[in-house]
Amino acid sequence: MNAFDESLASSSERASGSGRPPPPAPVESAGPGSSIDGWLLTRLRAVLGDPPVEFAVKERALVGPAAESAVARVTFANRRTLMPILADPPLRFGDAYSEGSVAIDGDLASLLETVYRSGLAAAKSGSLLRRATGALRRPHKNTLAGSRDNIHHHYDIGNAFYSLWLGRTMAYTCAYYPTEDATLDEAQVAKMDHVCRKLRLKAGESVVEAGCGWGTLALHMARNYGVRVRAFNISREQVAYARERAAREGLSGQVEYVEDDYRNIRGRFDAFVSVGMLEHVGVANYEALGAVIRRALQGRGRGLIHSIGRNYPAPLQPWIEKRIFPGAYPPSLGEMMGIFEPSNLSILDVENLRLHYARTLRDWLVLYENASERVRQMFDEKFVRMWRLYLAGSVAAFTTGTLQLFQVVFAPGESNDVPLTRAHLYPR
Amino acid sequence: MNAFDESLASSSERASGSGRPPPPAPVESAGPGSSIDGWLLTRLRAVLGDPPVEFAVKERALVGPAAESAVARVTFANRRTLMPILADPPLRFGDAYSEGSVAIDGDLASLLETVYRSGLAAAKSGSLLRRATGALRRPHKNTLAGSRDNIHHHYDIGNAFYSLWLGRTMAYTCAYYPTEDATLDEAQVAKMDHVCRKLRLKAGESVVEAGCGWGTLALHMARNYGVRVRAFNISREQVAYARERAAREGLSGQVEYVEDDYRNIRGRFDAFVSVGMLEHVGVANYEALGAVIRRALQGRGRGLIHSIGRNYPAPLQPWIEKRIFPGAYPPSLGEMMGIFEPSNLSILDVENLRLHYARTLRDWLVLYENASERVRQMFDEKFVRMWRLYLAGSVAAFTTGTLQLFQVVFAPGESNDVPLTRAHLYPR
Repeated sequence: MNAFDESLASSSERASGSGRPPPPAPVESAGPGSSIDGWLLTRLRAVLGDPPVEFAVKERALVGPAAESAVARVTFANRRTLMPILADPPLRFGDAYSEGSVAIDGDLASLLETVYRSGLAAAKSGSLLRRATGALRRPHKNTLAGSRDNIHHHYDIGNAFYSLWLGRTMAYTCAYYPTEDATLDEAQVAKMDHVCRKLRLKAGESVVEAGCGWGTLALHMARNYGVRVRAFNISREQVAYARERAAREGLSGQVEYVEDDYRNIRGRFDAFVSVGMLEHVGVANYEALGAVIRRALQGRGRGLIHSIGRNYPAPLQPWIEKRIFPGAYPPSLGEMMGIFEPSNLSILDVENLRLHYARTLRDWLVLYENASERVRQMFDEKFVRMWRLYLAGSVAAFTTGTLQLFQVVFAPGESNDVPLTRAHLYPR
Repeated sequence: MNAFDESLASSSERASGSGRPPPPAPVESAGPGSSIDGWLLTRLRAVLGDPPVEFAVKERALVGPAAESAVARVTFANRRTLMPILADPPLRFGDAYSEGSVAIDGDLASLLETVYRSGLAAAKSGSLLRRATGALRRPHKNTLAGSRDNIHHHYDIGNAFYSLWLGRTMAYTCAYYPTEDATLDEAQVAKMDHVCRKLRLKAGESVVEAGCGWGTLALHMARNYGVRVRAFNISREQVAYARERAAREGLSGQVEYVEDDYRNIRGRFDAFVSVGMLEHVGVANYEALGAVIRRALQGRGRGLIHSIGRNYPAPLQPWIEKRIFPGAYPPSLGEMMGIFEPSNLSILDVENLRLHYARTLRDWLVLYENASERVRQMFDEKFVRMWRLYLAGSVAAFTTGTLQLFQVVFAPGESNDVPLTRAHLYPR
């Protein structure tokens, strides 16, 4: 831990995602130069759209909203920490927080939610399209080799690490809570069934999965729907884990895990499914992905893509893109149509599960906090804080509508093998 | 009726949309010059992707598929009829059919379905995007005055005419068949309830409707869901009819029909709904439509747009655009996103009801054929044939996936007033 006083990163330095933050304590003292610090903090708060949050430089200055209305307090260790954040808050705040030179009094997820909201309110909707233009043209280095590096960076951190907080299913994607009181594990199983019902899987059919994580969905489909699955993934650690799991369950004959890129899918299948891979594909590769899908699907085939998305094109939060998910990009639905339209794939159903992802992330965050001592032993304090910020920031992004979660069901344009209604998705 | 022999436009000249066509009779004779006619027919058939259809010039030539496999026979009155069709089949076939110089043996809808399918199969999917480019840039003269002319052309033909074949509800949009055995009238009522459930209407709320037809949905919402409705339409005949209906039902205090353009919607509402208007808006006006919606919706507002669409951008069938729906354009989902994305409207749900529209149109066609003598008295034989071709062609377009029907549910991007699941759409 650097220039920052350990004692400040104290009691409330957790991001449980629920519960009221403690009322911020009054500022205790103001040292020399505190008026400059106050001016800088006021500027920072203005840049963020004047959120109901207190900002402080430790023992020197404090600015904030009218008494009692503050959601949390953000305390910077010193002016040296504050300056770069003022220049580039989205990127530098994350780094400063990870390094321990920013302390939070109150709930981290609620704080970030508040800051997201005030930023959104400040942005004029008329400027959304302009802001989007850059994102559209931004190249993503998702070549075969580039994708491998990017995926390795995130998913090969270690299966032991992920198993600490993903729950029993090891599913690292948005769950589906069919009722308010469903648990994380129940919701992950419900998500898989929701996907399988949307695909109308029948025993004996073949499925190709692009980006299979730790293999949970493939096993679920094979075990519960009697299908054969060929599941692709370029994360070596995940594939090793998935193969071992299939062997342990005696499903190796029905599920084949292939350590390869989705672009190398060959053969014909009754269904195509991809849950949480599209974020890593890059808009420039969407037309090619559509061609891969079109080639893979039989005339009566069905497909489903489940992906984080946006209400309008915008670049990924820069700190997340730099530190957590290099090469990732959540598309708008309009951008996603670049997959389907050139290949005459017909959209049958789109469902937005944004608030389910906010809840999934809150559930993960609780497990993560409970395991934070183990994470610290595996890595270090900086890592613990970095991933806390990432998870809490994601809660905030889905809660405020900064991010969306789209499940898109589609079929070859000429297929009339379409159910009359969607009632079969809601069995009682 | 022109140069064509009345006797040819005979027994099977109906488009009931169901039942097998009679086996085509063998060609009886071949007059002088028949080899030229035969060559022309062979070329026409090739242009259409060699569909399993017989083509003939009356008493002179016949070309077609292997015996027994023909879906129908198309007989041109003479070579003068055939030549312009060869040059521009999509536009000229419709005119020649309307004028009675083309006769069909077999079911018209099945014939058109077959021709659509062979055309689709011939088109390489790789060329879809190229073909689409023109459509994207094509200007639509949907200014306030232009829209009024276009809408008048189609919807002011006469309420008496439409009441002959739309069924009891006078709803001129895709119905929703919750079960295989639902009737047209049941399916139109079910469609309105499906829309109201998607909008989660509560008693006392306010709704604005853009393009309200003969006012059926507005009355249904007021009567069954206890909401106040302000419904816009620029078709004078439809508004007059709708007002009379509201008065007769004693709902004039709850439903206000406004003879005005959607662009003049003012005020705030709990819900926005538009069923079957977007086809007449034009892509160039989508961003403005989105801004109108955004302004109209409260923070917790919901919206639904129901529209004919496409799997990829493409111009409307040219004969339909010229003779039936001037200024109309069914957008792809990607194009539709031009409404929502610039205004940060979040897509919650998309459902494709394409096959429901094919069935609606088949049901309309049966009623239309039963009333064809009345239509002939109101207008003339050419009008009867023109509208038969339009309805049968639409059956074919929706059956083959040439057209789609999208219901899109959305809400302001910052609203978290979103149901956990869509199970409420499927009550038992």
